Amino acid sequence: MITLRKAVAKDVKAIMNLVNELAVYENAPEQVSNTEERMLEEGFGPKKAFECILAESENGIIGMALYYFRYSTWKGRRLYLEDLVVTESQRGTGAGKLLFDAMIETAKQEDCSGMMWQVLDWNKPAINFYDKYSTRYDEGWLNCHLDF
Amino acid sequence: MITLRKAVAKDVKAIMNLVNELAVYENAPEQVSNTEERMLEEGFGPKKAFECILAESENGIIGMALYYFRYSTWKGRRLYLEDLVVTESQRGTGAGKLLFDAMIETAKQEDCSGMMWQVLDWNKPAINFYDKYSTRYDEGWLNCHLDF
Repeated sequence: MITLRKAVAKDVKAIMNLVNELAVYENAPEQVSNTEERMLEEGFGPKKAFECILAESENGIIGMALYYFRYSTWKGRRLYLEDLVVTESQRGTGAGKLLFDAMIETAKQEDCSGMMWQVLDWNKPAINFYDKYSTRYDEGWLNCHLDF
Repeated sequence: MITLRKAVAKDVKAIMNLVNELAVYENAPEQVSNTEERMLEEGFGPKKAFECILAESENGIIGMALYYFRYSTWKGRRLYLEDLVVTESQRGTGAGKLLFDAMIETAKQEDCSGMMWQVLDWNKPAINFYDKYSTRYDEGWLNCHLDF
């Protein structure tokens, strides 16, 4: 049985493990400069920058949805799903669907006009999953970064 | 002379005009379902979802930078520049650089590890502008949307 719960400060290690697992899958482990200390402060301190829901089973923490709210000048307030991760050995258990459906529910409760996320164009398993919903894809956008 | 100031509630009409002008330039005017009423509530009400800085000259409001904060699980807290717009007749006046530099300053003051934004891959004038900074571009990401 899989249950969902809100992440708390002591989950930071498990969250960073999932972040790193996803970054390896996305061929970008070297891009992770974030740390448990930084995430503890920014996610669980007074200036909370994100929310996180965890999926748990008898195997412990097996996945997460990390999210926050954004503002689309075209569409208004949106939930942004920064990371949806299920650890590799636990894929196909339905944890991803539970987490994703919880995000839709949260976005609706928060009066969002919709939700947004990103996927790499070669990540067919993820795209197949998102295709089961009425997902609309926008191509041609480059992500731009300036690092200090 | 161009000056910058924070947008206030009465600027909503000018902001939506710039949003619509940018959407036309990006070949997506039909995607704008946002309204002045919604933006007034979401940007200037108690549950503030974004910040906006305006550029003004003797010609009135000539541009804006609309932004908020995001959380990168890879990089930590980031400023996100949702829209940088200078109205067509006022491009080349330096307003874009003033606004963009103000965003860098704000991101640093807010202890962000960097800033992020998106650009359409065919928008060469914008890319040429961003190239003057140490901008890093990520390709291959699709923007995904679920509209309620």
